Amino acid sequence: MIQGKTLLVFSAHAADYVWRSGGTIAKYVQEGAEVQVVVLSFGVRGESNDLWKKPGATEDLVKAARKAETVAAAGILGVEWIEFWDLQDYPLQVDAILEERVVRKIREVAPDYIITHDRFDILNPDHNTVSQLIFRCSVMSNSNGVKLEGTQTTRQMQLFGFEPHQTELSGYQPGIFVDITDTYEKKVEAMNCFKAQSHLIEYYTQRAFMRGNHARRLSGRQEYKYAESFSRFFPVVSPELL
Amino acid sequence: MIQGKTLLVFSAHAADYVWRSGGTIAKYVQEGAEVQVVVLSFGVRGESNDLWKKPGATEDLVKAARKAETVAAAGILGVEWIEFWDLQDYPLQVDAILEERVVRKIREVAPDYIITHDRFDILNPDHNTVSQLIFRCSVMSNSNGVKLEGTQTTRQMQLFGFEPHQTELSGYQPGIFVDITDTYEKKVEAMNCFKAQSHLIEYYTQRAFMRGNHARRLSGRQEYKYAESFSRFFPVVSPELL
Amino acid sequence: MIQGKTLLVFSAHAADYVWRSGGTIAKYVQEGAEVQVVVLSFGVRGESNDLWKKPGATEDLVKAARKAETVAAAGILGVEWIEFWDLQDYPLQVDAILEERVVRKIREVAPDYIITHDRFDILNPDHNTVSQLIFRCSVMSNSNGVKLEGTQTTRQMQLFGFEPHQTELSGYQPGIFVDITDTYEKKVEAMNCFKAQSHLIEYYTQRAFMRGNHARRLSGRQEYKYAESFSRFFPVVSPELL
Amino acid sequence: MIQGKTLLVFSAHAADYVWRSGGTIAKYVQEGAEVQVVVLSFGVRGESNDLWKKPGATEDLVKAARKAETVAAAGILGVEWIEFWDLQDYPLQVDAILEERVVRKIREVAPDYIITHDRFDILNPDHNTVSQLIFRCSVMSNSNGVKLEGTQTTRQMQLFGFEPHQTELSGYQPGIFVDITDTYEKKVEAMNCFKAQSHLIEYYTQRAFMRGNHARRLSGRQEYKYAESFSRFFPVVSPELL
Amino acid sequence: MIQGKTLLVFSAHAADYVWRSGGTIAKYVQEGAEVQVVVLSFGVRGESNDLWKKPGATEDLVKAARKAETVAAAGILGVEWIEFWDLQDYPLQVDAILEERVVRKIREVAPDYIITHDRFDILNPDHNTVSQLIFRCSVMSNSNGVKLEGTQTTRQMQLFGFEPHQTELSGYQPGIFVDITDTYEKKVEAMNCFKAQSHLIEYYTQRAFMRGNHARRLSGRQEYKYAESFSRFFPVVSPELL
Amino acid sequence: MIQGKTLLVFSAHAADYVWRSGGTIAKYVQEGAEVQVVVLSFGVRGESNDLWKKPGATEDLVKAARKAETVAAAGILGVEWIEFWDLQDYPLQVDAILEERVVRKIREVAPDYIITHDRFDILNPDHNTVSQLIFRCSVMSNSNGVKLEGTQTTRQMQLFGFEPHQTELSGYQPGIFVDITDTYEKKVEAMNCFKAQSHLIEYYTQRAFMRGNHARRLSGRQEYKYAESFSRFFPVVSPELL
Repeated sequence: MIQGKTLLVFSAHAADYVWRSGGTIAKYVQEGAEVQVVVLSFGVRGESNDLWKKPGATEDLVKAARKAETVAAAGILGVEWIEFWDLQDYPLQVDAILEERVVRKIREVAPDYIITHDRFDILNPDHNTVSQLIFRCSVMSNSNGVKLEGTQTTRQMQLFGFEPHQTELSGYQPGIFVDITDTYEKKVEAMNCFKAQSHLIEYYTQRAFMRGNHARRLSGRQEYKYAESFSRFFPVVSPELL
Repeated sequence: MIQGKTLLVFSAHAADYVWRSGGTIAKYVQEGAEVQVVVLSFGVRGESNDLWKKPGATEDLVKAARKAETVAAAGILGVEWIEFWDLQDYPLQVDAILEERVVRKIREVAPDYIITHDRFDILNPDHNTVSQLIFRCSVMSNSNGVKLEGTQTTRQMQLFGFEPHQTELSGYQPGIFVDITDTYEKKVEAMNCFKAQSHLIEYYTQRAFMRGNHARRLSGRQEYKYAESFSRFFPVVSPELL
Repeated sequence: MIQGKTLLVFSAHAADYVWRSGGTIAKYVQEGAEVQVVVLSFGVRGESNDLWKKPGATEDLVKAARKAETVAAAGILGVEWIEFWDLQDYPLQVDAILEERVVRKIREVAPDYIITHDRFDILNPDHNTVSQLIFRCSVMSNSNGVKLEGTQTTRQMQLFGFEPHQTELSGYQPGIFVDITDTYEKKVEAMNCFKAQSHLIEYYTQRAFMRGNHARRLSGRQEYKYAESFSRFFPVVSPELL
Repeated sequence: MIQGKTLLVFSAHAADYVWRSGGTIAKYVQEGAEVQVVVLSFGVRGESNDLWKKPGATEDLVKAARKAETVAAAGILGVEWIEFWDLQDYPLQVDAILEERVVRKIREVAPDYIITHDRFDILNPDHNTVSQLIFRCSVMSNSNGVKLEGTQTTRQMQLFGFEPHQTELSGYQPGIFVDITDTYEKKVEAMNCFKAQSHLIEYYTQRAFMRGNHARRLSGRQEYKYAESFSRFFPVVSPELL
Repeated sequence: MIQGKTLLVFSAHAADYVWRSGGTIAKYVQEGAEVQVVVLSFGVRGESNDLWKKPGATEDLVKAARKAETVAAAGILGVEWIEFWDLQDYPLQVDAILEERVVRKIREVAPDYIITHDRFDILNPDHNTVSQLIFRCSVMSNSNGVKLEGTQTTRQMQLFGFEPHQTELSGYQPGIFVDITDTYEKKVEAMNCFKAQSHLIEYYTQRAFMRGNHARRLSGRQEYKYAESFSRFFPVVSPELL
Repeated sequence: MIQGKTLLVFSAHAADYVWRSGGTIAKYVQEGAEVQVVVLSFGVRGESNDLWKKPGATEDLVKAARKAETVAAAGILGVEWIEFWDLQDYPLQVDAILEERVVRKIREVAPDYIITHDRFDILNPDHNTVSQLIFRCSVMSNSNGVKLEGTQTTRQMQLFGFEPHQTELSGYQPGIFVDITDTYEKKVEAMNCFKAQSHLIEYYTQRAFMRGNHARRLSGRQEYKYAESFSRFFPVVSPELL
């Protein structure tokens, strides 16, 4: 049951959450879950190559463009709560203040599920930094000895990892395939907000098709047309076999 | 929902299915699933060391003792359908006739889930043989070009692997923890049918406690007291995050 | 330099070589290499699900259809030498006679490169059987103590592995990306011969796009639009860095 | 021969060394080795959940309780030298001053063996931090170019890793099983000092039973009733097979 | 203590045991252990390339040459009991008769240690076949339900694996380094019996130097000049840390 | 074609680049490539054990000796451009200033290939630090949003990793073998500049022989006498099979 669940997504750069979890996010919104997204950086230095090629590009202009794109995409996916922490990227750097901010955010939302970057990306050091940060902060958030005024200890939540761009080279292992057939169109529309990265739009459109093929093959459910996959940080715990 | 599901268990030797999945089997029976167990061998050569130490032990006597124990255990777990194929063990050998028999059995039962040995056991070659056999036959069963008179092609089912005895050395990775708090007592009682292996009774009693601890720690569900874990041959495919 | 090279492809079933190496094969033919393909089985039992759904399907009709498709595909790719060994599939079984036949074939062709199935496919036992068979026979072929009348010992050749269908779950690691931009159209046309498997046509069309994306990203060569990837059985040995 | 050996244990939190190496420590003390324990933090923030649930809990009270428990446990194990460095935990943070302190400690003790946390714990970032810290400092300690007034370069020592709580999920591989049958009772008594964590007392009591079972099975030595296992950072080097 | 130990070595081809364990064998003989060697094949087809290049080479001549070499080498190492089972190699094939013969041999010798091929060799299928055969038969030998007239069940022994020729590519992990400084000269002399493979003499002479370097580095024992390494099939079980 | 290629080598300590890539460097110089070497530290604390044993050794004297040795070695290899950044080692520490310096260097040279330390060295934390630093900076260098005055964004280059000293224990996998037969003598001469480390001279001389053996065995090219191997950070991307 999706209704009533709470989902918190941490995205290193402005578009990561759309490419890799846009269909799942839209589905959760549509079926009555609470979804919040935290965008840690706009990816100005590391993920805006096409914008920098425009004549007259400045950091401010690139950032504004990235923000406009991602706000539009979030709107299409139905995300009502999105935060931009506007950190520098490439490299994205972590200190104790940022750690506390993440712990506070997790405790404020008290999510059932966190989605963030998987534990290793062969080509993107920022993704690795964020993966470790969010994991570490989730552990702190769950520990009642970590006292932060105005916050309450959370209960152990499940963590899921985005597919990295080059999955095999990053040692990525799909742990779950989520059927996104019903929200696939929204995902495609949201991806189309990132006009400057048209090669990625096509890439992740095809990825949904490929993961749909896998989902059908592994489950025998012919109605699964499109899917997203995520790694699991922990195994399933359940009253029954799944 | 367990009710209405069909579960097929393949056990290399007489007691394997009790140590490693007795709680889950009892739960599935209790909650209205159909459960069938196939015991490929009585484990006369490889898993009856204590029985062979008795004066006057012969192959027939050992086999009879093993059969009596496992029938009793199945009764306690509530299993109504158990078959003994009475193959030789140590080594358990595979040929085309056995393969066809397994495919026929899978097609006859058309299970939602198959539970059998995981892909690698560092100390038990028979377990590895059975794991490969069942996997291969499940693929054949699902292929509609594999024609066997009187059978119907199955749909892709999920396969789960038993914990091997020495998990870390066998590279075992838990893929799911199933809460067995409600049937733990039955499992203990069933294990006690195998009197000649009292060290294993204690061992797998403790294992249920340990996996219960893990299940609580990973899920935050304090009501999970005892659990069994299984490896997954394939990832979860689902309409939602789990 | 492709011209003058000799390439030998072993395909477990009728269409495997097209989905996974059609672009590379067409390129090698086009640029003057000698290419030979051995199709071990028609995949009647395991890879013809759609054909079996046709009313009146028999083994002979399915086989004829598979043969017609793969002959047409080979023609489009420009393959002049293709052999059908017509073994049973699902399961494909190996004996000493088949081993000798493979060694003879390798010695007859004396290839620079062999392409066959990678070492592990999570869903296809036949692929694993063929991978081991071809590897083992390549070792025997290279040993001058393995005497087969009318044959000559070969020199160590490179072995490459096809992508399995579910790459991450099979532990597949790309070892080389081959640019197939120039022969991509031929590959698509050849895939279209397998009308009964239209979901795979789309799947492997997209795969060429995805691998092209990876090839560009890893090399910086913007002219690489489409690619195929293969695993390497052995590392590169070279007079220079590559 | 245990007599005359020197053993240095680094524990991230107050109780880690008891759960995971208490039997081995007691044995080494009992048989005449020199044993020193360094407790880096009291685990006030991360490993005192039960104490924080008591009404009126403050950091000072929790810390005092943790210290009293661990001092009592060390006494039961016979440890005469235990140090409390009282660092903050969750997260435990490393700087150059701490590194130097660790190097000084290692050089002062000049241990034959160091026991500390294994290289990966899936649920405890502090354990990972400490594992890397101790390894790095052991390398510096052994290098005679790392000059620290009043210290002498050490000789390469063996490093052993504690079992993490969730072994398989942490990729833990037992590298050695140490028989603790003679000191098992002391270990249980020492664990009972940590009253607030009774679920762990049972857990690690059972672990000694399980590892004893493995030790018997792998060695054929029926007299091994209880054991602890450790990972090895390096292989055995020996004048003979072991 | 080496004296009184029993060591059983299974070698796929005539020279494997010399290259990979000659120093350890000589040491065990010299220090009073009982050592037996079983050579499964002469390696006529797969490991006699240089002999086949001689004019007039026939299978009988090659075999005679291989036998003479390995008998001479065994003599230098001090091995008093060596058996030649004279199986065909490339491929070396296993059936139930061979399995029983291996079990009988293990039970007859009742070794403390078995040394044979490690679990994976990237370039030598026979080595992999033998590794699995010996492991499987050791399990059967230890099981008292496997009845073979005139034999007695063995106790669990340790199994060690030879270094494959290309260690990294075969995933080889050294589990123990055995100091062979005292018998290094004998090993070199024994290797020199295999005149037709002079490139391997130099190769394994250097290997002893390299492993000696590793052994010194990991242990700090400067007196270790030469060593052999072996993989471990199982961890160390011990009354103390090693 | 080596001529016209640009090669940039980052070496954690003074001699690392000679032991592990001296033959390849000499070959690239000899055949007309541009080669630059950056030595990050002189290895005064961690890799000068023998120099520190000399009476009267001070940091300045050790450093001067290390510099003289490595300058001499570079001269023999024909390296015209070598920089000494003179960082402290053991531990080698990274900050934002160093990161920028590395990015600037990469952009200034715009190399086709970077050679540096592989991703894991079991015994040398500095090597791991440098490996991560260089990889991270290569990503930043290639991103056109990372603005550094006076620099130009680079195109994706290939990264190769040095063999660590203990390859198997470090999980090292050779990705390419480079034939260094023609420059082997220069490499030996260059290694002989490091008189205080004679055990390493012999070690890496033998390593070239061993890798030459592997290169011949894997390629069948008998003219390859000596080789160096490197890991690959990324797969080969190529217009043809290699």
